[in-house]
Amino acid sequence: MAETAIDHLIRQLARLPGLGPRSARRLTLHLLQRRDTVLHPLLASLTAVAQSVRQCGVCRNLDLHDPCSICADPRRETGSLCVVETLADLWALERSGSFRGRYHVLGGLLSALDNIRPEDLGIAALLERAADPGVEEIVLALGATVDGQTTAHYLSDALAHTEVRITRLAHGVPVGGALEYLDDGTLSAAMRSRRPL
Amino acid sequence: MAETAIDHLIRQLARLPGLGPRSARRLTLHLLQRRDTVLHPLLASLTAVAQSVRQCGVCRNLDLHDPCSICADPRRETGSLCVVETLADLWALERSGSFRGRYHVLGGLLSALDNIRPEDLGIAALLERAADPGVEEIVLALGATVDGQTTAHYLSDALAHTEVRITRLAHGVPVGGALEYLDDGTLSAAMRSRRPL
Repeated sequence: MAETAIDHLIRQLARLPGLGPRSARRLTLHLLQRRDTVLHPLLASLTAVAQSVRQCGVCRNLDLHDPCSICADPRRETGSLCVVETLADLWALERSGSFRGRYHVLGGLLSALDNIRPEDLGIAALLERAADPGVEEIVLALGATVDGQTTAHYLSDALAHTEVRITRLAHGVPVGGALEYLDDGTLSAAMRSRRPL
Repeated sequence: MAETAIDHLIRQLARLPGLGPRSARRLTLHLLQRRDTVLHPLLASLTAVAQSVRQCGVCRNLDLHDPCSICADPRRETGSLCVVETLADLWALERSGSFRGRYHVLGGLLSALDNIRPEDLGIAALLERAADPGVEEIVLALGATVDGQTTAHYLSDALAHTEVRITRLAHGVPVGGALEYLDDGTLSAAMRSRRPL
């Protein structure tokens, strides 16, 4: 059995999210046994991404271009900005196809506990973008957690003096979700925001 | 959202064993957001493995050296050869620490259905190794499947004219396994091979 390089690779893979020692070993075996068809193409792909991905100077999205393909897309509405915590949230919203404006990726949430301050989240850049007279609405698509709500309040205070309309995502019953397993907070929110059929 | 390179990477990751589109996306996000601490070290590790792994000319193990570190280890017993189907089986046996001899990796099993013949498994090389007067035992550590048993029979026939002792792994109750969920075949085998306490 090989020592260093292979074991090192397994250890690194085992630390990735969703993987553990067993699946890392399985992956490594798979890669070793298919060097030409799997390992080398994967390596090329990872190298390409590592070399070409950059942060968008406008919205802090990660993309192959700066400004990113969303900021540069003339078909996206310029009047709407959607503030998200992470790239994962941006990807999720894009997959849903429900938002046609542009984004602002905070890269985190305000947190007294973790000592994350407005300067750490590029909030100044967001306020600058909000000052653009073309921006009419800012959607705060932040999680319904303590830090998410703290950040949303901070942002809505910081934007209070502008003309921009501030909105947040609706709370409610997830589509396909059963009421019986839903937590009380969501259920109350869904009841309060009930709508005519 | 990025098109080509990132999507391509996600597609490739999603095809790896144990991963799917969701976990591939999660992995990619993790790598993108931690380029310096995760992506680049992983890339270096994969590159090192891709460049340095080779097949052992003696036992067909994959290792950084040829002959592999097991074949080259003077502390391993030279009198015992353990025949395994795959590298995964070799790794599993090494983890168990139960075998101190050397291996022979077939890289597959005889299969009329899949048209895998003795030539495809390097069986000639195994017979050559078995002819070494130092070899006293050959353990056929092959799966208890149709193809595994076919291959074991073929090998024991091919080795019948030699002085070498041919053995196979014991069948029985897995350690920690409950009888009630065990299949009949295993249970019968375990009963037939019962031993004094």
